Amino acid sequence: MSEPLGRTVGVGIRRFHRAETSEAQDLVATEEPLEIRIVCQDGAEPAKLRVSVTMRTPGNDFELAAGFLFTEGILTSRDALIVVEYDPDLPEEQRSNVVDVVLAPGVHVDRDLLQRNFYTTSSCGVCGKGSLEALVVQGCRPPASRGPLVDVEVLLGLPSTMRAAQRVFEETGGLHAAGLFDAEGHLLVLREDVGRHNALDKVIGQRFLAGELPLTDRLLLVSGRTSFELLQKAAMAGIPLVAGVGAPSSLAVDTARAFGMTLVGFLRSDSFNVYAGPGRIKAGA
Amino acid sequence: MSEPLGRTVGVGIRRFHRAETSEAQDLVATEEPLEIRIVCQDGAEPAKLRVSVTMRTPGNDFELAAGFLFTEGILTSRDALIVVEYDPDLPEEQRSNVVDVVLAPGVHVDRDLLQRNFYTTSSCGVCGKGSLEALVVQGCRPPASRGPLVDVEVLLGLPSTMRAAQRVFEETGGLHAAGLFDAEGHLLVLREDVGRHNALDKVIGQRFLAGELPLTDRLLLVSGRTSFELLQKAAMAGIPLVAGVGAPSSLAVDTARAFGMTLVGFLRSDSFNVYAGPGRIKAGA
Repeated sequence: MSEPLGRTVGVGIRRFHRAETSEAQDLVATEEPLEIRIVCQDGAEPAKLRVSVTMRTPGNDFELAAGFLFTEGILTSRDALIVVEYDPDLPEEQRSNVVDVVLAPGVHVDRDLLQRNFYTTSSCGVCGKGSLEALVVQGCRPPASRGPLVDVEVLLGLPSTMRAAQRVFEETGGLHAAGLFDAEGHLLVLREDVGRHNALDKVIGQRFLAGELPLTDRLLLVSGRTSFELLQKAAMAGIPLVAGVGAPSSLAVDTARAFGMTLVGFLRSDSFNVYAGPGRIKAGA
Repeated sequence: MSEPLGRTVGVGIRRFHRAETSEAQDLVATEEPLEIRIVCQDGAEPAKLRVSVTMRTPGNDFELAAGFLFTEGILTSRDALIVVEYDPDLPEEQRSNVVDVVLAPGVHVDRDLLQRNFYTTSSCGVCGKGSLEALVVQGCRPPASRGPLVDVEVLLGLPSTMRAAQRVFEETGGLHAAGLFDAEGHLLVLREDVGRHNALDKVIGQRFLAGELPLTDRLLLVSGRTSFELLQKAAMAGIPLVAGVGAPSSLAVDTARAFGMTLVGFLRSDSFNVYAGPGRIKAGA
């Protein structure tokens, strides 16, 4: 494996403060393309398929690849996967941006699925409702439990716990974060990335590779706003409660309600809004 | 044309403030898929091509479609386009999420280009440098002028000007904004969207449809962080100065430097950082 790329890069800048200027050094979050491929051993051609190129912050690339393939419905079980590796056929200096996910012999991949945008599977055409129907086709199911899961005080404490663990954000101000917590508010996995969807794929991929899916008794906190894409990924992983520091979109709310998930927005140290599934939140200890 | 979808939706929520809870109504930003198609009259098949499905906030959909096709290098001139319209063949209730861009007779579209991810055109494989080389292939050229363009005081005033114009943000807290300004700091176009790339495509599309490209003496302000994707789109439109309220990524800095653009980050009312091209900024009036 080649030397991993750094998560931050030092750059020379000019700093302006009113009329005064000065030269300085600054740290910025690294953004580099990652190509995700799957290597099939199912007898069908082609055997090596390029699935996606995503702009990401290097680090936890194998988790990102596995998480992406899982949340897109392409990989459905840990057993389907033999190894994740940087492409061994590439020259050293290019290797760290291309990840191969090698599938077990006989695991079949629908080549058409990789070409087809999943919205085409919806029966009502292109619309929010169709996007939700497509999730059912992909395998999304409502979480089993709908009873109380988390105390108000635990929820209120999540942002400060996550922020304390966000080393790179403190350095650059340039990364999104996704944190997975247990119902008592203990941080289990934290991942950061220039792309919010990548941060979440890394979290889910870490659990996928550890054989820990579905995440039916976990809480997810994301550092920014919540969109359809993030709710879709959380739903695929079976996460019953998603909280965002920022605002949700309409389709994030619709997705949470359709799948019986809890969606929290504007989570601060003393308040929050619940857009779906308030029954999982217990007031008082 | 069907009734446009609203930019915001009212939802019932439960509000928690410490141990107190209350029922309330909240406004969230609308997120719905938009399918962008091109209709070709070049004799090649198929004549109608699906180019993209993007999750966007409804409004200015024709600008979004035109801007997206321009910044992706698929549409290169205003004359290539006859009309942009909601698909007239669809039932009324589905129409507002599907936009057809009808090209002039004889305008040829490379069907392969639409299938191919543009990173494959790079000579060095998948890496940041390759991503920059791909932009040259797409038609990005450095802006001609490199001399002073804007006063420090004008730059410092951009965020408050944009924020004052952001009606929807004030309502929902859930939208990214992109604003195009002249060198004296007058706001020319402001667009908002749940997707930051969509907000910028709408701005560029508005200018494209008005026949006002390239934007060689304009300033762009985006509400959040700056990434490769945003710099790529700005470079395609010939915008010489991009400012973000948040942090830039490493590849945003690299892109600005490679194309001779000015990149400003952490733009506040009294300070900012310049990551590339400080020569366009004049200290003092």
